[in-house]
Amino acid sequence: MANSNALENLNPHVSVDCVVFGFDFGKLNVLLIERNMRFEGAEYHDLKLPGDLVRKDEDLDTAAARVLKELTGLDHIYLKQFSAIGSPTRLVRRSRDMEWLRSIGHPEEIVVTVAYYSLINIDQDKASRFILQSNARWCAVSELNELAFDHLSILQQALGVLRTDLMLKPIAYELLPKKFTLGQLQQLYEVILGSKLDKRNFRKKLANMPYIVRINEKQVDVSHKPARYFTFSRKGYLKTRKDSF
Amino acid sequence: MANSNALENLNPHVSVDCVVFGFDFGKLNVLLIERNMRFEGAEYHDLKLPGDLVRKDEDLDTAAARVLKELTGLDHIYLKQFSAIGSPTRLVRRSRDMEWLRSIGHPEEIVVTVAYYSLINIDQDKASRFILQSNARWCAVSELNELAFDHLSILQQALGVLRTDLMLKPIAYELLPKKFTLGQLQQLYEVILGSKLDKRNFRKKLANMPYIVRINEKQVDVSHKPARYFTFSRKGYLKTRKDSF
Repeated sequence: MANSNALENLNPHVSVDCVVFGFDFGKLNVLLIERNMRFEGAEYHDLKLPGDLVRKDEDLDTAAARVLKELTGLDHIYLKQFSAIGSPTRLVRRSRDMEWLRSIGHPEEIVVTVAYYSLINIDQDKASRFILQSNARWCAVSELNELAFDHLSILQQALGVLRTDLMLKPIAYELLPKKFTLGQLQQLYEVILGSKLDKRNFRKKLANMPYIVRINEKQVDVSHKPARYFTFSRKGYLKTRKDSF
Repeated sequence: MANSNALENLNPHVSVDCVVFGFDFGKLNVLLIERNMRFEGAEYHDLKLPGDLVRKDEDLDTAAARVLKELTGLDHIYLKQFSAIGSPTRLVRRSRDMEWLRSIGHPEEIVVTVAYYSLINIDQDKASRFILQSNARWCAVSELNELAFDHLSILQQALGVLRTDLMLKPIAYELLPKKFTLGQLQQLYEVILGSKLDKRNFRKKLANMPYIVRINEKQVDVSHKPARYFTFSRKGYLKTRKDSF
């Protein structure tokens, strides 16, 4: 296994990078790798996306899954390719990034990276599924203002794709419990869109989504007025998609 | 210019390929390059997508525009990246493909390609804008059953993206004249989707598209009953997109 990552088995010009978003009802997180290095006499501790060169004997999807598992411990995560990025200067803007590449034995300056993204629910009750390796950690997207190489730009691009997908595809319902309140649904949109939404407008828009079905059940054991539960009808959703053409 | 494409200026492991769809009201076409070669004593004339290696000093979007112009003559075409493809065996399945790569001085067996697509209107009155180089030509998508390398698979993937985009984005209206009949709109959908649609169902679905606006004008000088003209309201369209969240 170790030898498979030897330089002669790698394509020196192509890498994969993974943007794994971790949703909880409080905030949107992204999975990053701590990078600890010495450069020009100083210690650096910064963060990067999980990514590495592609092997010559594997396809891109396989490489993304392998690299994510090797660097973070996460396995069986659905990764969607969203962009290839190949600006000739993307790796060489900062000298400490170049120094780090040399230190791990990757001397090439021109590497096209193929970027993948994923969205998983890391709410507390499910967190045990996602035990991370020691230098991988979840970071709040809203608190990041610098990453290694062009990784902040890749993260922002992934965020754009995620937000578009949220509008066009039923991904919200994969994150919610089977029955949910409209308050929970609004909170989910707010976390992913990164902004507060007006409750009245939000409910008005929901009226146009016939696939959000009210069920005959309310919250119990809550201190406030119990809210009605809703569920997502995949059949109803597919019907609206068919109609939308 | 000629020297910029010398092997030392190219990234030997990364290429771009362009799937340019040419729409006319009769059929959906794709722009291909004729490849003429001798292999094992026989002449081959087959077809490939316009594509080539990326230079080390250009980004991927620039490479796609450059390669398309160099190989076909088409310039100022909006190209959208839709996929990176990196199966390790994608170039080496057929020995004549390998022989051809060696003959043009590209000996690498592992090349990840970044695929772009575009859709342009090549209806007769506009055809003069699109004068092609001698070995480039428009081919009916429905008549293709073999292309060089994995290019048929790349074409099919592009077709899937185009059909999804047709459902989700207002690309239909960029192909239609400013005022159009519902018959023309249906024909456009049929050409791109590659199948006949039921007229009554089609009209019923249009009722859900408030951004298709009836105007107070009918066809003139036609032998059949003159049809009503419609137009596309971008403002109305953007409003429905906002509501769809």
